[in-house]
Amino acid sequence: MNLEGRHLIDPRDLSVTELTELLDLGLKMYENPAIFADACHGKILGTLFYEPSTRTRLSFESAMLRLGGRVLGFSDAATSSASKGESLADTIRVLDDYADVLVMRHPREGAPRLAAEYSTAPVINGGDGGHQHPTQTLTDLLTLKKYLGKIENLKVAFCGDLLFGRTVHSLIKTLSRFPGMEFFLISPPELRIPYHLKEELLEEYEVKVTETSQLEDCITEIDLLYMTRIQKERFFNEEEYVKLKDSFILSREKLAPAKDSLLVLHPLPRVNEIQYDVDEDPRARYFDQAKMGVYIRMALICAVLGVKLPC
Amino acid sequence: MNLEGRHLIDPRDLSVTELTELLDLGLKMYENPAIFADACHGKILGTLFYEPSTRTRLSFESAMLRLGGRVLGFSDAATSSASKGESLADTIRVLDDYADVLVMRHPREGAPRLAAEYSTAPVINGGDGGHQHPTQTLTDLLTLKKYLGKIENLKVAFCGDLLFGRTVHSLIKTLSRFPGMEFFLISPPELRIPYHLKEELLEEYEVKVTETSQLEDCITEIDLLYMTRIQKERFFNEEEYVKLKDSFILSREKLAPAKDSLLVLHPLPRVNEIQYDVDEDPRARYFDQAKMGVYIRMALICAVLGVKLPC
Amino acid sequence: MNLEGRHLIDPRDLSVTELTELLDLGLKMYENPAIFADACHGKILGTLFYEPSTRTRLSFESAMLRLGGRVLGFSDAATSSASKGESLADTIRVLDDYADVLVMRHPREGAPRLAAEYSTAPVINGGDGGHQHPTQTLTDLLTLKKYLGKIENLKVAFCGDLLFGRTVHSLIKTLSRFPGMEFFLISPPELRIPYHLKEELLEEYEVKVTETSQLEDCITEIDLLYMTRIQKERFFNEEEYVKLKDSFILSREKLAPAKDSLLVLHPLPRVNEIQYDVDEDPRARYFDQAKMGVYIRMALICAVLGVKLPC
Repeated sequence: MNLEGRHLIDPRDLSVTELTELLDLGLKMYENPAIFADACHGKILGTLFYEPSTRTRLSFESAMLRLGGRVLGFSDAATSSASKGESLADTIRVLDDYADVLVMRHPREGAPRLAAEYSTAPVINGGDGGHQHPTQTLTDLLTLKKYLGKIENLKVAFCGDLLFGRTVHSLIKTLSRFPGMEFFLISPPELRIPYHLKEELLEEYEVKVTETSQLEDCITEIDLLYMTRIQKERFFNEEEYVKLKDSFILSREKLAPAKDSLLVLHPLPRVNEIQYDVDEDPRARYFDQAKMGVYIRMALICAVLGVKLPC
Repeated sequence: MNLEGRHLIDPRDLSVTELTELLDLGLKMYENPAIFADACHGKILGTLFYEPSTRTRLSFESAMLRLGGRVLGFSDAATSSASKGESLADTIRVLDDYADVLVMRHPREGAPRLAAEYSTAPVINGGDGGHQHPTQTLTDLLTLKKYLGKIENLKVAFCGDLLFGRTVHSLIKTLSRFPGMEFFLISPPELRIPYHLKEELLEEYEVKVTETSQLEDCITEIDLLYMTRIQKERFFNEEEYVKLKDSFILSREKLAPAKDSLLVLHPLPRVNEIQYDVDEDPRARYFDQAKMGVYIRMALICAVLGVKLPC
Repeated sequence: MNLEGRHLIDPRDLSVTELTELLDLGLKMYENPAIFADACHGKILGTLFYEPSTRTRLSFESAMLRLGGRVLGFSDAATSSASKGESLADTIRVLDDYADVLVMRHPREGAPRLAAEYSTAPVINGGDGGHQHPTQTLTDLLTLKKYLGKIENLKVAFCGDLLFGRTVHSLIKTLSRFPGMEFFLISPPELRIPYHLKEELLEEYEVKVTETSQLEDCITEIDLLYMTRIQKERFFNEEEYVKLKDSFILSREKLAPAKDSLLVLHPLPRVNEIQYDVDEDPRARYFDQAKMGVYIRMALICAVLGVKLPC
């Protein structure tokens, strides 16, 4: 794997081999973080958050600090110079001198790709509008690798809002590149996966896909249940929302018939789509998933900086 | 003293022995900060400020940086994920992985206690609503220890708003646990100490308490004068405010008859309740008090992290 | 050069000799940053930004981090304690204990000078209203030194808003202190340099000054072209703005007849006063200029802290 100087804007910027090697490094970092404690000594991460995202920002900052590096940046656009009418290209050509690697969150789709064109430092996409959020996908994959031991021949159910969910689209497309995947797509009819994405899965990747509106249809056979939030404002009327939402809320009862080895994940924040008493179930791993996010970001930062690693 | 892994939400979470040992450590750090310069190398402090408080936040950050540690966090709720409807418990279960110790400021009383229940990292209360602010109390105690040499057999006057003042309540209750305390409570009738707190002082701690509305009644005999701000909006009408406020403003004239060893403290920010020319008086120590806040926070961070100390 | 413990509020706080030595140090840092990587180990920079300025703040932060130091502070007034009615003097007397050197940005002219009176730590002015921005001037000078090899006997054109431009005034006055300067002042009649400043140039410094509204008048002979933004709201009416602004927009065509050694600078952010295709011209150095800002700030921080340097 040689990712030195590379940008990560879309998970497809990495080959499956590169993804796998990056995940291996992430797992090593999880298992023995102490030996990486000075890997990024003297390096600076710039966090350019044009919209707030505490979770993503602090996960990156924690990753860099745990590598012995330093952090500077801003956490919302109000304190950036965009308000003075400066173009993003100009901003990046200044800020890339202040840091060795940049992570950018931006409300506009494509902004990190544009930034990457002008930056001499590697740019990592920390989420651009409804578009991409590649480090969330890497986090999901590392969690799979750790808790299921593999990323192949898996039966995966995605449940909730499959129409607008950025993290779901990104994960679905990435998992499709690994062998032997079978997907169950569980959503209200209004929030089904976009047609073009479904076509892509079927035609380009030849993944087996089953659409349903009942978790019960697949709960006994799946290896991974990936829950997402259904936002009330996606529905046309209150009546419909109330009628449908219960089908997509995970409870202890619904989870009962699943395999012991099932993994329940959620990109968080959770609102009410997973009942709180599910948290105690050993199959519920969404908080451990958030923890894995730090390790895969440590691996990614080291990789794009090309720092010498102790292993 | 073994505070490793402990939370500090309320000063009463610490025994008098633990308080005393922590203050001893704070004083050592004040006297010889250089030997502690790497005590927290590789450790991360998370600053979760759900409402702004520059002074408290920067005091904690300075403490951690002076110990060789690192800091991440947010400085107001707008950049936190609370706005997406996530529960505080969920937020904490994610953030506790990003840092080794957390300090939380929150407008809602009890929020840090709730956070402590879910956090695997020690939680330090950085102020919750009108409730508690234990590190301010520790700061006050360390200042007493340094400038008076002891925390026992002291005559202490509290002056100003004794009804709403969070720092005053916390300090009064904590001082009451040390032997031989006598209190003078100086306030307008409308801003007297709450009845239940006075009862507690008299019955539980058997402290001698005198209520008055005149600083002149006790100025010659006290060891400590603890000033607080009277906020105009506490008064029912302007006329009453104007009439009363002068009684609770400290001037050079009022201070003149006091002992040379008197200590004048104030939790800051000061608005107009201490006249500016009092600052030059050697008995005025409120800026030194702010300085002591860094050292006691250094001691506290080391204690709850359980790091190995060079002394 | 001994700047230890000194404040920098106005470029005139430094003698020409001190300026020159500081620039020499900045150039050394640019040429060999690695040897300064631990120069400020254990030191803390406090960034007190009472109004947002991403560029200036991050440039300082990058400088301090590259010296092995640490940073704390705030990036806008909303999270400072000014909102509680505290005086700036009081705030500074607390914050100067939290850091070893302070940089302050403030919307009010004179605020950093006031802060310097109360601070035990050196205060660097990071821009106060329309008044001073000395580290921008130092950045400009370091860029001249690097790309032109000298700061004397130069023909310098300033183009754009010369009436309100803080950075222009500061640079003009500072360049005037070096020998053999000749200035061309190019602006719309409404945005000419203030009368008192022109008088000062002519009488105090005996600089040769030519005012014009045409860049064409001097483009072939100048060594430095310093562009600034013309803000639309400075004009009395839209018609006049449209008529005049084209005269003050730099294009490839206008630049064509200039010397090969010409340096085009701009304090940034640029809006539209330099056309984007000029960026490719090797004489356009405004992004390199921003980069130099980090090195001169590194030099300045080391100088006022009085740290031992490896050279």
